[in-house]
Amino acid sequence: MKAVVYEKKGTVRLTDVSMPKIQEPRDAIVRVMRASICSSDLHIRNGGVPRAREGVVLGHEFAGEIVEVGAGVKRFAPGDRVAVNVESFCGECFFCRRGYVNNCVEGGWELGCRIDGGQAEYVRVPTADMSCTRIPASISYEQALFVGDVLATGYWAAGIGEIKPADVVLVLGAGPTGLTTMMSARLYGPAVTVAADVNDARLSLAKERGLCDVTVNPLKADVAETVRSLTEGRGADVVFEVAGAKNTFELAWRAARPNAVVVVVALYEEAQSLPLHQMYGKNLTFKTGGVDAGKCSDIMRLIEAGRLDTSLMITRRAPLNDIIVGYDTFANQKDGCIKWVVTPFEPDKSIPAQQF
Amino acid sequence: MKAVVYEKKGTVRLTDVSMPKIQEPRDAIVRVMRASICSSDLHIRNGGVPRAREGVVLGHEFAGEIVEVGAGVKRFAPGDRVAVNVESFCGECFFCRRGYVNNCVEGGWELGCRIDGGQAEYVRVPTADMSCTRIPASISYEQALFVGDVLATGYWAAGIGEIKPADVVLVLGAGPTGLTTMMSARLYGPAVTVAADVNDARLSLAKERGLCDVTVNPLKADVAETVRSLTEGRGADVVFEVAGAKNTFELAWRAARPNAVVVVVALYEEAQSLPLHQMYGKNLTFKTGGVDAGKCSDIMRLIEAGRLDTSLMITRRAPLNDIIVGYDTFANQKDGCIKWVVTPFEPDKSIPAQQF
Amino acid sequence: MKAVVYEKKGTVRLTDVSMPKIQEPRDAIVRVMRASICSSDLHIRNGGVPRAREGVVLGHEFAGEIVEVGAGVKRFAPGDRVAVNVESFCGECFFCRRGYVNNCVEGGWELGCRIDGGQAEYVRVPTADMSCTRIPASISYEQALFVGDVLATGYWAAGIGEIKPADVVLVLGAGPTGLTTMMSARLYGPAVTVAADVNDARLSLAKERGLCDVTVNPLKADVAETVRSLTEGRGADVVFEVAGAKNTFELAWRAARPNAVVVVVALYEEAQSLPLHQMYGKNLTFKTGGVDAGKCSDIMRLIEAGRLDTSLMITRRAPLNDIIVGYDTFANQKDGCIKWVVTPFEPDKSIPAQQF
Amino acid sequence: MKAVVYEKKGTVRLTDVSMPKIQEPRDAIVRVMRASICSSDLHIRNGGVPRAREGVVLGHEFAGEIVEVGAGVKRFAPGDRVAVNVESFCGECFFCRRGYVNNCVEGGWELGCRIDGGQAEYVRVPTADMSCTRIPASISYEQALFVGDVLATGYWAAGIGEIKPADVVLVLGAGPTGLTTMMSARLYGPAVTVAADVNDARLSLAKERGLCDVTVNPLKADVAETVRSLTEGRGADVVFEVAGAKNTFELAWRAARPNAVVVVVALYEEAQSLPLHQMYGKNLTFKTGGVDAGKCSDIMRLIEAGRLDTSLMITRRAPLNDIIVGYDTFANQKDGCIKWVVTPFEPDKSIPAQQF
Repeated sequence: MKAVVYEKKGTVRLTDVSMPKIQEPRDAIVRVMRASICSSDLHIRNGGVPRAREGVVLGHEFAGEIVEVGAGVKRFAPGDRVAVNVESFCGECFFCRRGYVNNCVEGGWELGCRIDGGQAEYVRVPTADMSCTRIPASISYEQALFVGDVLATGYWAAGIGEIKPADVVLVLGAGPTGLTTMMSARLYGPAVTVAADVNDARLSLAKERGLCDVTVNPLKADVAETVRSLTEGRGADVVFEVAGAKNTFELAWRAARPNAVVVVVALYEEAQSLPLHQMYGKNLTFKTGGVDAGKCSDIMRLIEAGRLDTSLMITRRAPLNDIIVGYDTFANQKDGCIKWVVTPFEPDKSIPAQQF
Repeated sequence: MKAVVYEKKGTVRLTDVSMPKIQEPRDAIVRVMRASICSSDLHIRNGGVPRAREGVVLGHEFAGEIVEVGAGVKRFAPGDRVAVNVESFCGECFFCRRGYVNNCVEGGWELGCRIDGGQAEYVRVPTADMSCTRIPASISYEQALFVGDVLATGYWAAGIGEIKPADVVLVLGAGPTGLTTMMSARLYGPAVTVAADVNDARLSLAKERGLCDVTVNPLKADVAETVRSLTEGRGADVVFEVAGAKNTFELAWRAARPNAVVVVVALYEEAQSLPLHQMYGKNLTFKTGGVDAGKCSDIMRLIEAGRLDTSLMITRRAPLNDIIVGYDTFANQKDGCIKWVVTPFEPDKSIPAQQF
Repeated sequence: MKAVVYEKKGTVRLTDVSMPKIQEPRDAIVRVMRASICSSDLHIRNGGVPRAREGVVLGHEFAGEIVEVGAGVKRFAPGDRVAVNVESFCGECFFCRRGYVNNCVEGGWELGCRIDGGQAEYVRVPTADMSCTRIPASISYEQALFVGDVLATGYWAAGIGEIKPADVVLVLGAGPTGLTTMMSARLYGPAVTVAADVNDARLSLAKERGLCDVTVNPLKADVAETVRSLTEGRGADVVFEVAGAKNTFELAWRAARPNAVVVVVALYEEAQSLPLHQMYGKNLTFKTGGVDAGKCSDIMRLIEAGRLDTSLMITRRAPLNDIIVGYDTFANQKDGCIKWVVTPFEPDKSIPAQQF
Repeated sequence: MKAVVYEKKGTVRLTDVSMPKIQEPRDAIVRVMRASICSSDLHIRNGGVPRAREGVVLGHEFAGEIVEVGAGVKRFAPGDRVAVNVESFCGECFFCRRGYVNNCVEGGWELGCRIDGGQAEYVRVPTADMSCTRIPASISYEQALFVGDVLATGYWAAGIGEIKPADVVLVLGAGPTGLTTMMSARLYGPAVTVAADVNDARLSLAKERGLCDVTVNPLKADVAETVRSLTEGRGADVVFEVAGAKNTFELAWRAARPNAVVVVVALYEEAQSLPLHQMYGKNLTFKTGGVDAGKCSDIMRLIEAGRLDTSLMITRRAPLNDIIVGYDTFANQKDGCIKWVVTPFEPDKSIPAQQF
């Protein structure tokens, strides 16, 4: 079958690999119906994820149909439509019992990093009962595609933000994770969500689709000042720093009101400066971390109810044949690309590029 | 000036009373621009509120313009537009410091019960800094009218319900308090809100205006079964019992899933039965109580942001002249009345009835 | 081997049964080193637990040594010393993922009720990884004996009580569950714990051993008044109703301050009366339910640290030979019995009674 | 009367000043019975607190007897014994209503910084109803002395640490604030509290007095390794960084387990480094800030109940006459000084030094 393989630092190739097989009783084999390209795939390609295994099939955000299950799978059967979590977890360990499934002592991010992932025609999913989320009949694969990774990330971030009804929320960054953070934050009843980004098109999209109320481009206006003007001078009640740009960490805490929560979702390549003496009296809480895939059933229910909708992020879709073009388009934000969606391989179509 | 006086058990009259004056430094005089009739007014009239003072001017839900302030008022000045809280509170006592302002040792429900209220042309508001909520310029008196009582009640109820995103919420009762509970519950991101009432018109209104997703009339369908069908058989994650009818308390806990929160907003004239042995293993939490006016600023901000809108409840509006007709219309739900709104007295118009 | 069998309503017998065997891969066989008699055993005997299976070996509170494990057991091996949970749970279902393991859709109370329990020489424990808690080397079987049931119950109750430092806590009932509730409540830093019981000896024990600060016998003094005298007239911040006697439910809410949490641990045979109109303005929260075995590791750690110690409850210990005497002694609170502890069967000793 | 005046950067002097008088209706005059020297006094002297007013009487941690009250004081009368808060707050503003009294828009740290403080014979206390905490009859001034500042700081820190029963807590620093943090943390039921300091005498004191269970001197052992050995390799569940030394911020997060809360109480003169990429996957929460005087009544109740006891910190006491010696002793930790307590001025005794 066709799959995207991380060959070595700098090289990702669409190539032929052997079909996956059940290895453990709790495994399932999933036929991939929709997959995506994530910035983490680019990080792996760039050598930025040392634990990624050379030769691994990439892809950790996908949805598909179960075609085979091991003897120990209790909740799923062939024919079931599922979204797959980026992380696996056991449900039993110290961390899982406390709800911190992203620190599961047995699990973590494996698919598309340590073991073969979903940018392929088929994929083996371990501990399928815990790693898959059933897709209701009324929901398409495409609607469910982001449940297990970028939407789970935004949902996790919003969930730890301690947003209260009537709050003014600031989200720095309107890329895929920023957008899912905004839509998840809306579930907590903020009065006003302010989105900041240097990309006006993304800001417009966020506002037009109701993900935010106020937009500000930091190249054109003072973000902190905008927030203060909406809060009688106090600053934002909750700040989500999703941008990860130079100075955005500082902007995050400067725009926050005293006793605010600042959620740092962004990844930085360098240490940030924490000048506590300059924020004396602000009594800030900083929450850091990454995706938690423990609430995918809740997310799916909200999609089914029409309360979450990630379709606005899909700016292009094309078969697996074209995925290397997709890598380039996504990596360089060509054509306004937010998310490139991969549909199943089409044997009759050409493969325009095989390496990135 | 004209005002509605509770004369004695059974008698409420529109009559002439003297203008209110500043009595304490923290008092303000408010010209009433919009008032409403509340079911508590009917309770007083029916003699069901023993602490209500005979001769008091009724009305505890109103908005207006400040025309005079005492020397100790810091936050308001003549000309300010305000909604007034049903309760006063000190901000300093054991309960206020814990956020339980409805148990303030110095405050409580005074206006329209112990001291003259707002079904009048003017009203004296004690501790005005704590009792008034500023109305933003973009908000009309009518939009702000319910902030201090029936909306505060629904907002309080939703706030203690521990609703989490993706929950299925059941609201029993679609009268004014049920409607404000539904709209406040939406702020917490439920996947599905189910409304139950014997009045189909109210259910239709709730659904058409987006306050709920599913409606059920218990005279026609099984409410608990409807909820279970939406939750894989579990029952509602959170139940709000606002109906106060015979059997609705039992319905509330029967429709709840294990470990649910059941918020009892309704008032009953008789003791309810709590058959804990029948709910063994359900591990339910029951939260009881009434309006908490401590978050009116938040509520106003949400109205300003368009996230709360009570205009759908206003089925009639008429000048103070007609208020006795309004009492009858509201009490008997004539003409589909949900909320009757009182506009200022019009000296040139007749007074169709003076006693109820 | 010897075991206590529930034959039919009214009859419990010490008799010979066959040795348990591994049936499922996740099973373990445990040699019982300490067991106890619980009031639920008496309820089964009295026919009060319809789901109890006739012919089952009783006993759901015990500790022992693992002698054999199935192929699917990951965390334990023969030789490990463990306390066993009254409940089993899967860690994967809707309820387990929310921490409500006592509503696990696959688990629940099985041992000593639906399947053979621990008042025996050996017992089969299903899903051993989730059902057992390792006993540290410094802790004896006897110190660990109550971890999985009566101590888990008190720990669960205290945990949902929302006790804050400086609170005044009232515990109604100083029997085994009352005592474990008191010791668990102390972990949350109350200023004063008040214990109420009609049994002065139990009150004295609780006070002498530091589980409470103030004791009151309702036959001799007014419990609510005692609490109000300690709280400037407000009432208790948190009430635990563990007594289950006539009128103790009413006493619980009457002794509570406004906005208190009332945790109802007691079981009643009849419906209680909930006169909400009489508690108008008190804004109480009632939490109901039963043992949650999801935090046994935490409990064990606290025992190891010396912060929890149930040894004071053990008033008698004797080999399995004497257990039928123990049933009688425990059921009738003879000799001041709080908890009767069962040590291993001694073949050379007589069996003084075989039926209760 | 005698008082300690901050003359200018570098100079603090015991001198004569005029008696304070009631200036506002809510003022009270307090006769100081016990005062202390705080490290913030040293910061003022060193010019490190720009907002401190030259010429101000120092001292913000003290207790005494009310000798006069203004007409607007409701809760106190002459003869009342009180501890005084370092901060004042209004109870009415956005922040006070949310419990963040240390960000009160009208209050903050005034006494001994902006207005005359308590290192004097008498002091004027504004908004006395909110700024004073009544001392119960059974409690001495000395027992109550630290309620309003250093104990309030430790109590605040512990309160935001989200400590759960059975947690392993690490406190970096065993000076006055570290000690009050430890004793406050104990109120939340940790299984083990680990204290770290370079001063063995302070560690010994903390352990002997039951404030911690394990001590570690980072000059002699690896703090993070010690914590990991107590937590199956995970790290501390909650870390309090009170030391403020070079590298202690880094030690704090390195010693924390994934998903831990790290409370940063320490003040630093320089920005700290936050290398989020090095703590990837740890999902830490950092809480920063300072003393919150909103819970002094709770603290006093815990002292009365014997659950908090700061007497172990008092290593020296001497009359106001000797306070300049005290500044030197405290500043340089001479004679093992932890806290130097100031008793009332003794006119017949000499004044050994007047300037520091």
